[in-house]
Amino acid sequence: MNGGIGEASYANNSLVQEKVISMTKPIIEAAITELIMCSSSSMVRGAKSLCMAELGCSTGPNTLIVAMEFVKIVSRLCRKHGHDQLPEFQIQLNDLPGNDFNSIFKSFAPSFHAQLLQEVGSSALYCFISGVPGSFYGRLFAANSLHFVHSSYSLMWLSKVPERVEINKENIYIGSTSPASVITAYYEQFQRDFSTFLRCRSEEVMCGGKMVLTLLGRRSESASSKECCYIWELLALSLKEMVSQGLIEEEKLGSFNIPQYTPSLSEVKTEVEKEGSFTINRLQVSEIAWAACGGCGYNVAKCMRSVAEPLLVGHFGELVFVTAAFVARFLAVVALMAGLGDRAFVARPWWRG
Amino acid sequence: MNGGIGEASYANNSLVQEKVISMTKPIIEAAITELIMCSSSSMVRGAKSLCMAELGCSTGPNTLIVAMEFVKIVSRLCRKHGHDQLPEFQIQLNDLPGNDFNSIFKSFAPSFHAQLLQEVGSSALYCFISGVPGSFYGRLFAANSLHFVHSSYSLMWLSKVPERVEINKENIYIGSTSPASVITAYYEQFQRDFSTFLRCRSEEVMCGGKMVLTLLGRRSESASSKECCYIWELLALSLKEMVSQGLIEEEKLGSFNIPQYTPSLSEVKTEVEKEGSFTINRLQVSEIAWAACGGCGYNVAKCMRSVAEPLLVGHFGELVFVTAAFVARFLAVVALMAGLGDRAFVARPWWRG
Repeated sequence: MNGGIGEASYANNSLVQEKVISMTKPIIEAAITELIMCSSSSMVRGAKSLCMAELGCSTGPNTLIVAMEFVKIVSRLCRKHGHDQLPEFQIQLNDLPGNDFNSIFKSFAPSFHAQLLQEVGSSALYCFISGVPGSFYGRLFAANSLHFVHSSYSLMWLSKVPERVEINKENIYIGSTSPASVITAYYEQFQRDFSTFLRCRSEEVMCGGKMVLTLLGRRSESASSKECCYIWELLALSLKEMVSQGLIEEEKLGSFNIPQYTPSLSEVKTEVEKEGSFTINRLQVSEIAWAACGGCGYNVAKCMRSVAEPLLVGHFGELVFVTAAFVARFLAVVALMAGLGDRAFVARPWWRG
Repeated sequence: MNGGIGEASYANNSLVQEKVISMTKPIIEAAITELIMCSSSSMVRGAKSLCMAELGCSTGPNTLIVAMEFVKIVSRLCRKHGHDQLPEFQIQLNDLPGNDFNSIFKSFAPSFHAQLLQEVGSSALYCFISGVPGSFYGRLFAANSLHFVHSSYSLMWLSKVPERVEINKENIYIGSTSPASVITAYYEQFQRDFSTFLRCRSEEVMCGGKMVLTLLGRRSESASSKECCYIWELLALSLKEMVSQGLIEEEKLGSFNIPQYTPSLSEVKTEVEKEGSFTINRLQVSEIAWAACGGCGYNVAKCMRSVAEPLLVGHFGELVFVTAAFVARFLAVVALMAGLGDRAFVARPWWRG
């Protein structure tokens, strides 16, 4: 993600991610309500403090949206049931060490506290925010310490580019011309990563705790389906054009692949059942139109840029890629393509009890 | 503090703070040993995870020194007493929201983990680092969640410049020409702040927990004693020179005061007893020679600059103060004065059971 709060920053180009969170609010509310009201676990019912983790929190207006929901819903439930004393809240914000935690702490956390005071209206409300750097494909929190885990638009990122995908040639992700072995390598990396994620969380989430995960996925059972690969094909198109103009080397493009996998519903289900620690309460697929990104292809491209730029710069170098020329080319291609069809981002939320 | 890791950064100019931590290591070790071995609290003895907080952690090589000691001492004690299973460790790093947490997460935390693996030598060791932004003159952590609290060279910073010190004229701290009412205002601010600090920590530290605090103080009962005011008088001297040269306005200097108070032993003791939550196990005063800053006045001045520059820039503006001219002038004055006497920083560690 691009850090900071400038024009190309993720913070200023995360409208689609906001829409997705908004869409999953009823599910988040149901999970939190069940956590508080239906849990038979004394660890939850007698808790003086409730701890939630936002995994892949990024830096921007979305970072604390679900935390706000969490505090508001719990406070409402407590008041409704005559508990004057609200629990203390711990909000643990996780992302990779390169995430811009400074901006969260300096800009977004103070606004969060101000909004909380206004909306929940209790000066005796304690809500402690902390930043937890690290990969969620490893342990991040103490055992049995979390009541609620949320992650949105992060779990489709793999821990690394799969091995044995050098033969993927001009594709930068699974594409229509990708060999079968490349697709298998991507899928197996997803299986390993997702299973590791579940095992780590199963140690951290306490008995009775809940988890709501939303990730970019696909409706089709075919991993090379256009619905998830399209946007990367557009990016590849711009890169190929730069190769033909001699701006970047062909070999450099050949060795570039995106560490992402957008699973199908059944692939997610299979992995959860195989790992065995969690029970699925709800598993669904939803669509969000590209138009939700701000109404035009230009904004879709800006959104993609804010996400992909660090990957591109890391591989091809800053000099070539943060040029107005490349950005303009990619923006133009996406804008054109977005006008031709109504491609969509697919999100799938689910949770466990 | 100056952020980052550049030449003027706190990270590169915190040798004196390192010496102080080094000096207090036996006290830290005794406190941790008592925490683990002598505690009658089942919360500590049966704990699967141990949580320590470093308050005013700053950003630099000192940030994680005591955390390393904490993990090493506990691991050694566990092994010595035949506990194969080490507890999980939670290291909570606190400082103001403006602290450079990004550099901690990107540079110092990875080195910490690498060193830990080398020194404790267990791949099954879990040590979770998080950043907690906020003032320690307010609640920062969930109730009864901390086993061990450490803070070094931070608690002499007040929450704000005391009110009613406008009459302090050319002094920027308590100085030999400060009116009695200014000294009283500073002392009362220290009393309010320190008492608030103790009340907040008493809610967060669990029964049987330990706290080791080191702060800049003074031997003398007189708050205007040269031992603590001297360094600020040197800085004031440089500022006055700039006024005489018309580089800054006299009024601007008149309204600048440092939010610091260096208490005496009895002032600390009085406050702890008055607040009543903590028992003092040990309270002592130690000296560290200016020479420990790196051997010369130039290094003392660089150390002071890395601490004071943000305060100066905040008040006088960047244009005037981050000039080589000012820095050179201050460095020269301090170097000269340091050569004349053997002024010392006074540190006072203490802890409670």
